[in-house]
Amino acid sequence: MQNRVNAFVDSIEADVIAHRRNFHRYPELGWHEIRTASLIARQLAADGIPFKLGREVFKEDDRMGLPSQQEMDANYQRALVQGADPEYAPLFKDGFTGIVATIGSGDGPTIALRFDIDALPIEESTASDHFPTAQGFASENQGIMHSCGHDGHAAIGLGVCKTLKHFEEQLKAPVKIFFQPAEEGVRGGKAMASSGELEGIQYLIAGHLSSKEGDNGYLSVKSREILATTKLDAVFTGKSAHAGAAPQDGKNALLAASTAILNIHAIPRHAGGYSVANVGKVTAGTMRNGICSDATLLIETRGHSTAINDYLEANTLRILKAAAEMYDCELSISYQGSAESCECDDELADIARQVALEIPEYIQVVDNFEMVGSEDATYLMNRVKQQGGKATYMTYGSLGGMGHHKPHFDIDESDMVLAVKLFSGMALRIQTS
Amino acid sequence: MQNRVNAFVDSIEADVIAHRRNFHRYPELGWHEIRTASLIARQLAADGIPFKLGREVFKEDDRMGLPSQQEMDANYQRALVQGADPEYAPLFKDGFTGIVATIGSGDGPTIALRFDIDALPIEESTASDHFPTAQGFASENQGIMHSCGHDGHAAIGLGVCKTLKHFEEQLKAPVKIFFQPAEEGVRGGKAMASSGELEGIQYLIAGHLSSKEGDNGYLSVKSREILATTKLDAVFTGKSAHAGAAPQDGKNALLAASTAILNIHAIPRHAGGYSVANVGKVTAGTMRNGICSDATLLIETRGHSTAINDYLEANTLRILKAAAEMYDCELSISYQGSAESCECDDELADIARQVALEIPEYIQVVDNFEMVGSEDATYLMNRVKQQGGKATYMTYGSLGGMGHHKPHFDIDESDMVLAVKLFSGMALRIQTS
Amino acid sequence: MQNRVNAFVDSIEADVIAHRRNFHRYPELGWHEIRTASLIARQLAADGIPFKLGREVFKEDDRMGLPSQQEMDANYQRALVQGADPEYAPLFKDGFTGIVATIGSGDGPTIALRFDIDALPIEESTASDHFPTAQGFASENQGIMHSCGHDGHAAIGLGVCKTLKHFEEQLKAPVKIFFQPAEEGVRGGKAMASSGELEGIQYLIAGHLSSKEGDNGYLSVKSREILATTKLDAVFTGKSAHAGAAPQDGKNALLAASTAILNIHAIPRHAGGYSVANVGKVTAGTMRNGICSDATLLIETRGHSTAINDYLEANTLRILKAAAEMYDCELSISYQGSAESCECDDELADIARQVALEIPEYIQVVDNFEMVGSEDATYLMNRVKQQGGKATYMTYGSLGGMGHHKPHFDIDESDMVLAVKLFSGMALRIQTS
Amino acid sequence: MQNRVNAFVDSIEADVIAHRRNFHRYPELGWHEIRTASLIARQLAADGIPFKLGREVFKEDDRMGLPSQQEMDANYQRALVQGADPEYAPLFKDGFTGIVATIGSGDGPTIALRFDIDALPIEESTASDHFPTAQGFASENQGIMHSCGHDGHAAIGLGVCKTLKHFEEQLKAPVKIFFQPAEEGVRGGKAMASSGELEGIQYLIAGHLSSKEGDNGYLSVKSREILATTKLDAVFTGKSAHAGAAPQDGKNALLAASTAILNIHAIPRHAGGYSVANVGKVTAGTMRNGICSDATLLIETRGHSTAINDYLEANTLRILKAAAEMYDCELSISYQGSAESCECDDELADIARQVALEIPEYIQVVDNFEMVGSEDATYLMNRVKQQGGKATYMTYGSLGGMGHHKPHFDIDESDMVLAVKLFSGMALRIQTS
Repeated sequence: MQNRVNAFVDSIEADVIAHRRNFHRYPELGWHEIRTASLIARQLAADGIPFKLGREVFKEDDRMGLPSQQEMDANYQRALVQGADPEYAPLFKDGFTGIVATIGSGDGPTIALRFDIDALPIEESTASDHFPTAQGFASENQGIMHSCGHDGHAAIGLGVCKTLKHFEEQLKAPVKIFFQPAEEGVRGGKAMASSGELEGIQYLIAGHLSSKEGDNGYLSVKSREILATTKLDAVFTGKSAHAGAAPQDGKNALLAASTAILNIHAIPRHAGGYSVANVGKVTAGTMRNGICSDATLLIETRGHSTAINDYLEANTLRILKAAAEMYDCELSISYQGSAESCECDDELADIARQVALEIPEYIQVVDNFEMVGSEDATYLMNRVKQQGGKATYMTYGSLGGMGHHKPHFDIDESDMVLAVKLFSGMALRIQTS
Repeated sequence: MQNRVNAFVDSIEADVIAHRRNFHRYPELGWHEIRTASLIARQLAADGIPFKLGREVFKEDDRMGLPSQQEMDANYQRALVQGADPEYAPLFKDGFTGIVATIGSGDGPTIALRFDIDALPIEESTASDHFPTAQGFASENQGIMHSCGHDGHAAIGLGVCKTLKHFEEQLKAPVKIFFQPAEEGVRGGKAMASSGELEGIQYLIAGHLSSKEGDNGYLSVKSREILATTKLDAVFTGKSAHAGAAPQDGKNALLAASTAILNIHAIPRHAGGYSVANVGKVTAGTMRNGICSDATLLIETRGHSTAINDYLEANTLRILKAAAEMYDCELSISYQGSAESCECDDELADIARQVALEIPEYIQVVDNFEMVGSEDATYLMNRVKQQGGKATYMTYGSLGGMGHHKPHFDIDESDMVLAVKLFSGMALRIQTS
Repeated sequence: MQNRVNAFVDSIEADVIAHRRNFHRYPELGWHEIRTASLIARQLAADGIPFKLGREVFKEDDRMGLPSQQEMDANYQRALVQGADPEYAPLFKDGFTGIVATIGSGDGPTIALRFDIDALPIEESTASDHFPTAQGFASENQGIMHSCGHDGHAAIGLGVCKTLKHFEEQLKAPVKIFFQPAEEGVRGGKAMASSGELEGIQYLIAGHLSSKEGDNGYLSVKSREILATTKLDAVFTGKSAHAGAAPQDGKNALLAASTAILNIHAIPRHAGGYSVANVGKVTAGTMRNGICSDATLLIETRGHSTAINDYLEANTLRILKAAAEMYDCELSISYQGSAESCECDDELADIARQVALEIPEYIQVVDNFEMVGSEDATYLMNRVKQQGGKATYMTYGSLGGMGHHKPHFDIDESDMVLAVKLFSGMALRIQTS
Repeated sequence: MQNRVNAFVDSIEADVIAHRRNFHRYPELGWHEIRTASLIARQLAADGIPFKLGREVFKEDDRMGLPSQQEMDANYQRALVQGADPEYAPLFKDGFTGIVATIGSGDGPTIALRFDIDALPIEESTASDHFPTAQGFASENQGIMHSCGHDGHAAIGLGVCKTLKHFEEQLKAPVKIFFQPAEEGVRGGKAMASSGELEGIQYLIAGHLSSKEGDNGYLSVKSREILATTKLDAVFTGKSAHAGAAPQDGKNALLAASTAILNIHAIPRHAGGYSVANVGKVTAGTMRNGICSDATLLIETRGHSTAINDYLEANTLRILKAAAEMYDCELSISYQGSAESCECDDELADIARQVALEIPEYIQVVDNFEMVGSEDATYLMNRVKQQGGKATYMTYGSLGGMGHHKPHFDIDESDMVLAVKLFSGMALRIQTS
């Protein structure tokens, strides 16, 4: 079976690469993926694959860290100029840039595959030895770049769709392919996980391309140290007063903020594992001689587990609230992103390993990838696990390190077909074995 | 009339001095004045003057800064040993060491005079040139001393009682004489003021002896800069935990306290006048390697006016409360003392001035004494003023400075008869003019 | 004599008003007064009055709060476009926009008069009842306005120059007229005071127009409560690090800043009088998940006296320095402005009062104006006083309040001729009596 | 060989138990072990074993956390009353309560064994089922108890001395037995390690008894997670001033302390492993209305490694120093204890394992004891390792948990002979194999 899959995928390699280069050339930041999503939709339609999109595949209030309406409007116009599909584009407007395709039917084991599609606010390298530059598909959008490989993920996702469609008769139950926006900043995963689209899903497979360093053909079938995180903004609003003439009339948002900052950094470390709370950026006040009436703090917590991160978040919130009360200030909290920790399941990892054994190009298959970072695929993974299902997060590509988020980042394009073989093969093996 | 008063008072000078030396020899701290109060009661009874005492003359819950029951029990035993009146002593037990004598009747203008009777935790000088030591009536109670002249106040009060009793037929309305405990630390005034004993009183006269420096015969008929103050203890109670093994399980009372301390000191100064909040003493924690679970702060606020002090107190309380919430600690506040600001009335000051003109020994009569300190006579003064009455706070004695609260403090005893003449004369003048 | 002065000044009223409206229409912020200063220079030259300007009249390093070079260059171009004198403009370039005119000679008592010439970053009212708008001379420079009356000061200064020139033969010694830039933010006074131009000066007269409210003809011949102040920026520079991966490698500028902020606000108030230290604005950090490596604080201290302000400044600096050391950060301090307190001299106030008696339009002459604000004329005043001379700061104009720094601020133009009479008359009286 | 050792040790079991009960009955806190040490010395002398003691076996300045002279004097008197050896006692006076015995000679591999001898400030249980109480050898010293088994360690050490003396002819090089005071609070180890007594030593063996729970015969031949720690006291000395009258004259030690406390707790966690800094106890100030002039902080740092602990200590010191400078206070630091981390050597652990195999009573021999605590044996261990030697820290006794430092703590006395067999056997095996 896998041999047939491998052969089919080899036959569509040019398509996969073309998609990747197209996405790479017109990168879009999180919640702005109008062009990207509309082209995915157009391709799915062309391939005869049914899908849902836009407001259907998100729980609206769980989306985090949305850009301003003005930014979204401006980006929408650019997307249309840059070739967004005019039929589908409107359906993704205002921060609903996700798609869920469905292939197969029956009452066999249900599967979801998840691919993220957003780019980063990084200016792409113009070095002549940078492959996208050399090949003429470097970013056209200034200051934005696919420097984390999500262009590849989107292309792999489309390749998997085409492959599974080709082998649809083998499928014994629906396989859903999630194209998720706004993974950067862990902003989009939660809202797709809570959309209802995962209901009944028994297996969730996600993963990430490694950067082009060393030989390709590397695969870690599970990941460890996926950290839970919360990203929130806190705004203290007090009351201005002339610092000299009537200091007693003010409500000092800066003192509230300073108190909160010191105490957030003093939250006791959790003996259960890694735990960090950080205030990274502050803007407060407008004039030297006025009691400061407003302060904005950008805060992040990270914990070894969801429980530890919850501990940090709860303490952070309590400190912020008390600091506001201390200075009789209003406090406004807005969540800008979050992710959970997650344990990968050996059962799925084993299936990945077995499939990889039948894909000759995989030269190193391991299970010990230490992420030491966060991923909002965890919301989808944990949702499935809470339903009694299994989940894993794979890392695949080249053997080199994770040099992501750099202007010269690149993937090895030949790793994409391997991934299409792997994801497709796993879905087929789960449903056919 | 005043001439007759002067003559009578001169005739009882030995009594006044004897009382003063008796009280000086057995000084008692605030709320411990069992012996002092019982001897005052005995003398009033001997003089045929009716009085109320103990629980009758306090609003129980308004008493502040009471000693521990153990301390009160121990002191009670000592008072009995040192000659407290066994009949009256039990009535003052457990922190009710006040008396209100009443002389005169009728529906003329009602008057209250207030004298405080407590000593200080100061070890008296044993220098041979210290008058009480030289004369053999220095303190018998180690570490306790009448170094603020309240022994003289008590003796003056008794002299005034005897004098007014002598001239009782001239009185056109009741004159009440308040013997108040626990002025040091401003702990006793509020509860006497709210006891109901001031109901209907139209004039309140209080005052203080200056220290024996320079010639005697000084009188300031009113005082300025009587500061409002609040003295409170705050106890944070958190939860201990091993700082190494499980820091996340603790509730850190020390961090709550440190946060409160910094922010209390950062309360904006009030542009309306003098305003200071101070945390003067802290004890927290028991062991180096445990999350500190308890912290006690001794706090004082002082303001140019009651309104400014209320501002400081309200901010202090809000900060303490928020700091407790920040660390999920319990907070317990106990008031240890308080006093208000007060404006003296010119009408009463003028009466004092007129009477003083008829007491030849007064050689300097002014109206500009700047107290820059606190007095809980203000509670009685303001209570009377709120009823539409008048009040003043006089300073009288020697011309020298206010060298109070020192081991070598002393009064000029001859100033006492002047004061008896003055207080008695004022009462008679108010009711007879 | 004063009658002749009055008559002459009445004859030049139109000139004074024309100058004021010209300056009002093209307002320039502190250190940008290229057009204003160049037109003053041109007028002085036309009037045959010798003067020094630019780098000659400043101690370069004592200038504070200079704009960026880019801003100065841009403003210079605009000034030329708006009619700056092309001969003089280059001499004021790069933050040297001051002039000192000299009239008279001889060895009589030397005098300096000081007028400030800068505008404020305020958008002028476009209301039809706003006089400058109604008369068509409202600000042409968006966001900039003469809303503190320095347009009037400059015009008065020119009027005084013309008048004293007219009466030059009466003068017995040099009278110097200082046209000072950048009074707003108290940035320019110190550098003119230390330039050497005040050497030998025995009398210094400065003052301010009040706003157009109530009848005109008000004069306070001296001011009280001129507060000392220091305005400084503090920049902490630490070291960034990933808050999650290697927090121990960072040097946290935000924690240094927060610690400094809390402790600066906790500097003990000074019992000697008004004392406030305020951090009014903070910007720190760039990203949520990085250890913050830079923080900028805008700070102001204000004290009842130079000594109290020095106390606040010294404490502020010590706290900033220690906070930097606490986090191993670099600290950079830049002074953005400062002013001293100053006591006005009765001798000069009396002269002003005498002159005002001979100017019939003055209907209210007092000496009790409470400034409760800062002025960098104090540097010039104190410099003269340190030389043994006398100084005063007058307030003159309408009887209404100090509604300065508002979009609808205006002066009563008729107060300008009164001021020209007053300043000129004082100079003549000092030298001729 | 081990069989002969086992047999000999069995023959002295009564002695070992008698020593333990003697020490248990008269427990002495760290640096007070006058009686304990003098009886050890007497026993060594009786057994014909040479030893050094007192000032000879410490580097004086490296001793930490010494009691006050008054406490040492009082305890010395008690020790004499309770049977301290009058010949040796004076040699241990003033905090030099250690002994180093030496057995064997030759140029074979040199060995040091280390036993600690101090008790804890814990009141012993009087429950009838508490073995020492039931057997009549419970603590005679109120509030002091051997609740950590160091009575057993001392007895084992004496048993090992007797045993090695018996087999002295087998020894090929000196074996030194260290009896160390003041392990509680990690105060005594450093000064013995730096005394010079370890020079040339190639093997260092230390260990600890587990508490009497479950079956006896447990042995862990090496330990992990031996944490580095520093215990220090910091005293801020500022300057008092009346908080109301002259706050500006004070130097506020409490604000310095509060600032230090918050920032010490905010030291970034070290990504390299466990890292905690804690301020556990604070006393500051004397009166409510005075600027606090003194504050004492009890501080502890703990790190997964010596490097991490050094990081914490360096940051703590820098924060303390900066906080003192911030308030112009003096800072005094005194080290109260410290310990290093240490890696046990497999070579020595293997030897322990081999010996244990020949001691039938050992029923569970492992190598994974997780200490998660500190021990100042690490100073001796690291000293030997730095010389190129090997070291291990064993845990032996019953299988149950580490319920130490409790009023009902007890050891299983039969574990002591096992330990004597083990230590003796290891020394013999090292030198004879």
